[in-house]
Amino acid sequence: MLTLYYAPGTCALASHLALEYTGAPYEAKRLDFKQQQQRTPEYLRINPKGRVPALVTDRGVLTETPALLQYIAQSFPAAQLAPLDDAFLLGKVNEFNSYLCSTVHVNHAHKGRGYRWVQETDTAALEAMKAKVPQTMAESFTLIEEKLLQGPWVLGERFSTSDLYLYTLTRWLPGDGVDVQRFPKVAGHLRRMEAQPQVQKIAALHA
Amino acid sequence: MLTLYYAPGTCALASHLALEYTGAPYEAKRLDFKQQQQRTPEYLRINPKGRVPALVTDRGVLTETPALLQYIAQSFPAAQLAPLDDAFLLGKVNEFNSYLCSTVHVNHAHKGRGYRWVQETDTAALEAMKAKVPQTMAESFTLIEEKLLQGPWVLGERFSTSDLYLYTLTRWLPGDGVDVQRFPKVAGHLRRMEAQPQVQKIAALHA
Ligand SMILES: N[C@@H](CCC(=O)N[C@@H](CS)C(=O)NCC(=O)O)C(=O)O
Ligand SMILES: N[C@@H](CCC(=O)N[C@@H](CS)C(=O)NCC(=O)O)C(=O)O
Repeated sequence: MLTLYYAPGTCALASHLALEYTGAPYEAKRLDFKQQQQRTPEYLRINPKGRVPALVTDRGVLTETPALLQYIAQSFPAAQLAPLDDAFLLGKVNEFNSYLCSTVHVNHAHKGRGYRWVQETDTAALEAMKAKVPQTMAESFTLIEEKLLQGPWVLGERFSTSDLYLYTLTRWLPGDGVDVQRFPKVAGHLRRMEAQPQVQKIAALHA
Repeated sequence: MLTLYYAPGTCALASHLALEYTGAPYEAKRLDFKQQQQRTPEYLRINPKGRVPALVTDRGVLTETPALLQYIAQSFPAAQLAPLDDAFLLGKVNEFNSYLCSTVHVNHAHKGRGYRWVQETDTAALEAMKAKVPQTMAESFTLIEEKLLQGPWVLGERFSTSDLYLYTLTRWLPGDGVDVQRFPKVAGHLRRMEAQPQVQKIAALHA
């Protein structure tokens, strides 16, 4: 059985949803970031990066959201979470997921985790990073709104892991000082996601 | 035919190498960053992000290094650049590539592209970011050395796109103030890569 390590409201929600959509049995283990449970020696043996998500499989541990999303889609093909046999369409899914991971998530992380990139005593630099987050997040979501999200789903008519991941990061917008209503297609996508029973079930664990 | 847009020495080298390893015909178009050719209206029509790499296919454009690497591997399976039929091993390739993209590349970008995350007039914050790059890059390569790179190749005996991508980012270490000799397994990997004829041919275009 698969075991997912997550913390509520984090990027691990995307992988958590993917598991739920497969219908397969899995266990979800919750870490408490307030207690720094991602930094205990026990957890660092599972994921030396000290981050979530981490997925324990019978062959070893996988980390990194785009990798987990594709692994889950490929392991449970009946759930049709990715166009596995179409290299170009799968490339589009991976392009979108990689953009969320390397650009949108990273923009967001400059609000609360700026100490990754400057000394943590440099409060002026930390504040300077935090101050730009509403702008960088709005710029990323402008690109998503205008170019990447075809509608109703990211790929158009076809639902995929990119929808789970977009939903996960869209939820961060209010906390990042961005009004999702500025982006009508993204706001519609959020409403459609919130109407899905799997999303309602798992979002309750991430409240 | 596939057309790759690249700039010398950038992360586009990984995709450039992947194309070369397939043996398939492709065209590589070079952009000059000094002339800001990644920001011209013509190029923004190809890749609205204003970045490289971008791969033009007969079905449309793909961006994002991890997506290009898997697309190339899947389109030319005879080159065996990824364990496509093994969801777990492919997950390991994607985990590694996603880590390079979202963490290692991002650490490096805080040296020359810090203005992405703070106002570009804030020279103190830009300097603070630049100052930490040797530390963040060394930390990332410590994880690669100790946990991720199995040797001789990233996956062990099996060569993959992760080797092309690791080589690409290892080349950035001297410029980032990190001595690659601190990491014996990474240094050995670099030597093995430099001995490959495909790498010698393409690296000459990225000098
Ligand atoms: N590139 C990784 C990033 C993982 C990541 O940064 N996760 C955050 C939560 S959104 C985390 O675990 N942070 C804990 C910490 O920084 O201590 C992915 O996409 O999975
Ligand atoms: N996540 C993207 C990042 C692409 C990227 O940032 N490329 C850099 C070169 S290494 C670039 O084009 N920079 C130009 C600029 O920032 O103007 C990927 O992995 O392909």
